[in-house]
Amino acid sequence: MPITIIKGTIVSAPALGELEITENGYLVSEDGIITGVFPALPERYAGAEVEDCGDALILQSFADLHLHAPQYPMLGMGMDLPLLDWLNAYTFPTEARFADPDYAREVYRRLARELIEGGTTRVCMFSSLHREATLILMEELERAGVTGYVGKVNMDRNGLPPVLQEETEESKRETLLWLDQCRDFRHIKPILTPRFTPSCTDGLLDFLGKLAAERGLPVQSHLSENTGEIAWVKELHPDCGQYWETYAKYGLWNGRTLMAHCVWSDGRERAAMREAGVTVVHCPDSNQNICSGVAPVRAMLKEGLKVALGSDIAGGDHLNMFDVTAAAIRASKARRILDDWGTDFLTVAEGWYLGTSAGAAFFGERPGFAPGNPLHALVLEDRDLPRPHPMTPQERLERCVYRRQKNALRAVWSAGRKVYSAEL
Amino acid sequence: MPITIIKGTIVSAPALGELEITENGYLVSEDGIITGVFPALPERYAGAEVEDCGDALILQSFADLHLHAPQYPMLGMGMDLPLLDWLNAYTFPTEARFADPDYAREVYRRLARELIEGGTTRVCMFSSLHREATLILMEELERAGVTGYVGKVNMDRNGLPPVLQEETEESKRETLLWLDQCRDFRHIKPILTPRFTPSCTDGLLDFLGKLAAERGLPVQSHLSENTGEIAWVKELHPDCGQYWETYAKYGLWNGRTLMAHCVWSDGRERAAMREAGVTVVHCPDSNQNICSGVAPVRAMLKEGLKVALGSDIAGGDHLNMFDVTAAAIRASKARRILDDWGTDFLTVAEGWYLGTSAGAAFFGERPGFAPGNPLHALVLEDRDLPRPHPMTPQERLERCVYRRQKNALRAVWSAGRKVYSAEL
Repeated sequence: MPITIIKGTIVSAPALGELEITENGYLVSEDGIITGVFPALPERYAGAEVEDCGDALILQSFADLHLHAPQYPMLGMGMDLPLLDWLNAYTFPTEARFADPDYAREVYRRLARELIEGGTTRVCMFSSLHREATLILMEELERAGVTGYVGKVNMDRNGLPPVLQEETEESKRETLLWLDQCRDFRHIKPILTPRFTPSCTDGLLDFLGKLAAERGLPVQSHLSENTGEIAWVKELHPDCGQYWETYAKYGLWNGRTLMAHCVWSDGRERAAMREAGVTVVHCPDSNQNICSGVAPVRAMLKEGLKVALGSDIAGGDHLNMFDVTAAAIRASKARRILDDWGTDFLTVAEGWYLGTSAGAAFFGERPGFAPGNPLHALVLEDRDLPRPHPMTPQERLERCVYRRQKNALRAVWSAGRKVYSAEL
Repeated sequence: MPITIIKGTIVSAPALGELEITENGYLVSEDGIITGVFPALPERYAGAEVEDCGDALILQSFADLHLHAPQYPMLGMGMDLPLLDWLNAYTFPTEARFADPDYAREVYRRLARELIEGGTTRVCMFSSLHREATLILMEELERAGVTGYVGKVNMDRNGLPPVLQEETEESKRETLLWLDQCRDFRHIKPILTPRFTPSCTDGLLDFLGKLAAERGLPVQSHLSENTGEIAWVKELHPDCGQYWETYAKYGLWNGRTLMAHCVWSDGRERAAMREAGVTVVHCPDSNQNICSGVAPVRAMLKEGLKVALGSDIAGGDHLNMFDVTAAAIRASKARRILDDWGTDFLTVAEGWYLGTSAGAAFFGERPGFAPGNPLHALVLEDRDLPRPHPMTPQERLERCVYRRQKNALRAVWSAGRKVYSAEL
């Protein structure tokens, strides 16, 4: 893949709330790495093949930084149940089925395809505790063209033995074996994944923290999702003043850490995130579906925290990140109402930044279609939607967050490779 | 259309929160009127043709009791703007275009089709103030198979003259002429539609109230959507203690009245609705998108009010009532959070009732597939979705509210007529 040139209405998110627009522009990559967005094709590319997308929107593809792959089969189910009943009736039995590699293969192939067909090309994903199924998940993502991190889940207490709990030594051993076995993936890498503090003994957290440091591995987990969970963590770790300290104590709290939810993180916990460079993964659908609360995203952004978006299937009911972006905007409006109109809501451009550039930052990318970034892009058609007046590219993008024509997605590139084309 | 027999997994909503399930059942209508749901085909229908839908779900179709037809072209647009800016930048200019009959024809044909393809067969709809475009809207709905009420909007003050305001006498004259001209529609009937109190002079409201009484016409309008509006109404009608009294004073407040939103209706206003038999149309998407607030639907239901659902496009961004049902459930969870977990959320079965039976009640139907109701039904396929375990029909319906396979809708009947078939 030497040179890729995509021509169309290019819209990217170079900063929170900003959209950079190049109409009839050229998005160019060489060997999968973006060299620039150009209003006219530079001389040096003369003669190279141009993929002309006409008037279609050329956008950054999405980064979904928190989702549970084995919950994919139960997407949209059990949404009336309280968290614990939901876990017992749906989540744990569903996750337990991933002991079966054939089942894992079938489900994960489908999930990987649906991600790409929704324009999500970067993920940070929870698998289950099953090593083999985790490797299958990584294979299927790699095959479909999804990039990012996948974690074999660690949980050696408070699970549902025997189906969803490991012995501590088994958990360590399986983790090391998994890390050995997933070395050859090119686009999918391992991330250490203690399910959350109540699921892991101190010994296991300690092991994972040391492993992260030794091997330079990133970490993902859950933080302050609901008030009952916070009280439980307090009981389990009376030495820790706040939930986040249970991760920090074991070396699981740094610039390569993702923490999902953070609905109830107060000023002190948020300051600890900012200082360590931890990324908050906001999961608006999930927080509302299971009545966790409404995360103070606006406050976090104002304080300079890193915030990205997660679909959090299957607490969330939308895998499609256009929908998750709209949900984040809507949640910020609920937050505004909760705050008695004292806080702003997220604009569409801000929501768009969170779903694209902010998530991509966890993978070391610069915001927008910056030169040096791997090419992650999608082509979106909206010509079948009515235009009540001559619409700007910004208006077209804004509308596509809420409303898309059938078969809107025309093509997707992931790490330089074209991984989806509607013509195929 | 003498006899229609549809066989499949029949699920209906006979009461708030209840689902009635007949697996391998027969839904039968004669001359468009339901005769019953039967676990086995009664002898008298032996030999009649059966439309066998296999395992597919056979459900009541939706009733969308509040939406603005001329805002359809701007669906999903301008959602970052405050209400007044949004009205001026998007709503009024878009509505003004319906002075052009050709434009109206094109847009309304498309809207009617999208309603049917989403399984919405009953509506109460705002048109614009244009008489001709309103008649075109009624024609296109009738042609597509949508049933229900359409209102030519009345607004003779506080509009944007000249494009969106009538003279009082003109408004009266055009309304009478419109009523004459729409007599021949079979499935689409007129509903009187003062836009809302601030848009109508006392003289016009008085005229409309008398007209409603004389001709036995239903009425639709807006009530207590946001706090600024309530203050404005108070200023305009210092003699009225509460907003609703401005309608009651002119005879626009009875059992055939629909009031959209009611986000801020307090106990007294809600009691007035219950006593008069007014139906509240809850529009969850719109209320959140334009930061109106979160309506206390749970309290209204507990108090015995009639509550139905509206998409309220284009304040709402979803025309599809599956999505609106999910939005109502999500909004009730936001309300629960707002109420410090002091109120329940709507279950999926409750949300489903609001979107189907509760709306159908405005048209005189009994809840569910009751004998005597006109046949309004849809067939929904979900075999392409994974089943993590053997699923009950209730679970299948619940999931379909949140997640549907591509081309899930297979067929739609409206007032006895088959108006959509995926095979066509």
